[in-house]
Amino acid sequence: MIVIGIDVGGTSIKGGAIRDTGEVLDTFSIRTDKNLSPEDMFGLLCEEINKFISTQEYDEKISGVGLGIPGLLDKKKGIIFSSPNMPTWLDFEVTDYISSRVHLPVKIVNDASAAALGEARYGSGKDYENLIMITLGTGVGGGIVLNKKLYDGLGGTGAQLGHSLIELNGRQCNCGRKGCLEAYASATALIKDTEKAVEDNPNSVLAKIAQEEGKVNGRTAFKAESLNCPVGHKVIEDYIMYLSEGLLDYCNIFRPDIFVLSGGIANEGENLINRIRSYLKERNYGFLGSPEVLVKQANLGYDSGKIGAASLFFYND
Amino acid sequence: MIVIGIDVGGTSIKGGAIRDTGEVLDTFSIRTDKNLSPEDMFGLLCEEINKFISTQEYDEKISGVGLGIPGLLDKKKGIIFSSPNMPTWLDFEVTDYISSRVHLPVKIVNDASAAALGEARYGSGKDYENLIMITLGTGVGGGIVLNKKLYDGLGGTGAQLGHSLIELNGRQCNCGRKGCLEAYASATALIKDTEKAVEDNPNSVLAKIAQEEGKVNGRTAFKAESLNCPVGHKVIEDYIMYLSEGLLDYCNIFRPDIFVLSGGIANEGENLINRIRSYLKERNYGFLGSPEVLVKQANLGYDSGKIGAASLFFYND
Repeated sequence: MIVIGIDVGGTSIKGGAIRDTGEVLDTFSIRTDKNLSPEDMFGLLCEEINKFISTQEYDEKISGVGLGIPGLLDKKKGIIFSSPNMPTWLDFEVTDYISSRVHLPVKIVNDASAAALGEARYGSGKDYENLIMITLGTGVGGGIVLNKKLYDGLGGTGAQLGHSLIELNGRQCNCGRKGCLEAYASATALIKDTEKAVEDNPNSVLAKIAQEEGKVNGRTAFKAESLNCPVGHKVIEDYIMYLSEGLLDYCNIFRPDIFVLSGGIANEGENLINRIRSYLKERNYGFLGSPEVLVKQANLGYDSGKIGAASLFFYND
Repeated sequence: MIVIGIDVGGTSIKGGAIRDTGEVLDTFSIRTDKNLSPEDMFGLLCEEINKFISTQEYDEKISGVGLGIPGLLDKKKGIIFSSPNMPTWLDFEVTDYISSRVHLPVKIVNDASAAALGEARYGSGKDYENLIMITLGTGVGGGIVLNKKLYDGLGGTGAQLGHSLIELNGRQCNCGRKGCLEAYASATALIKDTEKAVEDNPNSVLAKIAQEEGKVNGRTAFKAESLNCPVGHKVIEDYIMYLSEGLLDYCNIFRPDIFVLSGGIANEGENLINRIRSYLKERNYGFLGSPEVLVKQANLGYDSGKIGAASLFFYND
């Protein structure tokens, strides 16, 4: 089976023909424009899809179009209720709109869920039944895939895995609550912690790097640490503690086969992930009889959303 | 279909014939004795089951035996690895043992999971797809039932819903970790908080009740509060805050249809539950678009385990 998988993003919409083995055959991309109405924006996408289909000659016909879309959706009815960066995308019946123009069945899912499904079915999680995906970016996002099926709760509004408590009345979170994991383990939180450490330790290697580079990002403290800076090391150790405490919660709640980490911070790779593994292993606590949960970096990169969206057809979601 | 459902407890083993409507037809009970080997203990149970079957005349044959058993199990292989109050129950092949003696198919599940399945399928959760059960007893236990099926993670060691963080490096939890929900929202924690409030406020109505009754239990602070004692009121308000913060985590993670509360503290009923509902409603936070999660008290009482264990056959688990 071949399906077109599409990842709708804030700056571009990326699509590709995906085989049911997870292979990405050919891709296309169009820029998003938040000034366009949803009709015009998805109209352009439909033109692009039709053009793409007409130029491809596969050994089988394309069977459908799966889309990962940011925002609040009704998956079953195929409606976008709202989308954070697209103020005009309100109560838009996207599935019918696209289907009537490309003459193929259309399925939709939240973009973070699409990425989790991609990793669970074809990426780092492909050999496991139960996966928790944690995305460490501007915020902390997540996806829950149990028995290879997405679990996202009432109206798809669950799996807010960045919004579990780390500290009662702790740091202010963007969601309004205080003390959520996101306020400690997002790239944004790491950058704030790094900035504070620079300010408090103006003579550190960390501060020197920050000054040289003109600003701090999610890699600055990792870089300082690699140059034996104790200040950078402390920032990273704290970051790993916060993130791992969140993962310990998900060990106790889900005891999944595997955590898959994605997003900017996860690009630190084995340096980061090995330390998380050690933290979790040392603190399996009262549940010493409990099996260890694997931790891996996501391995599909930017393709995870496309592949996961296409997989809605392969797995008959 | 009629199945024998059995709830294995620390002081007794309670069984009953359960119809697939959830109706409990007839019951029996034997005392547990921790000095008996598992062979002897389950041997006695088998005799009781055979006697029970021989005296019943239902309109259909009994189709199987489902057991809810405390401890670490392999549900598929039918093995008890260990059971907290029964030191001799180690690596015991309970399913084969019983099956060969009662000549019926046998299925097993963890006792807390059996109770959650009972409530999800025939109790307070029967009209809903996704349920999180929280048991407020000596500890804080839980059960996760998604699409009417139990989710309990790797080797059945997940759903430790009392062991999600409320406060980093907070109160010492029995599991070894610091700051778990159980250390704030169990009956044990409420009793400790009540005792401290009595000590700190020797002239309060709360202290007077404690003195009169000779000791403090999980109801003492509720009682003082009902007599307008501000000290008792503060203890309960804090308790509700801790518990509700834990439930807010599970709103964000699962966004289930319903929370079902069971155990001693849940017997406070609507007085407690209405206040939890208000707390959750006022703090739906950044997820204001998210649907509300219902909160109800469990309504099968001590039958939930028996019914849930029997339901392993009705739902083909």
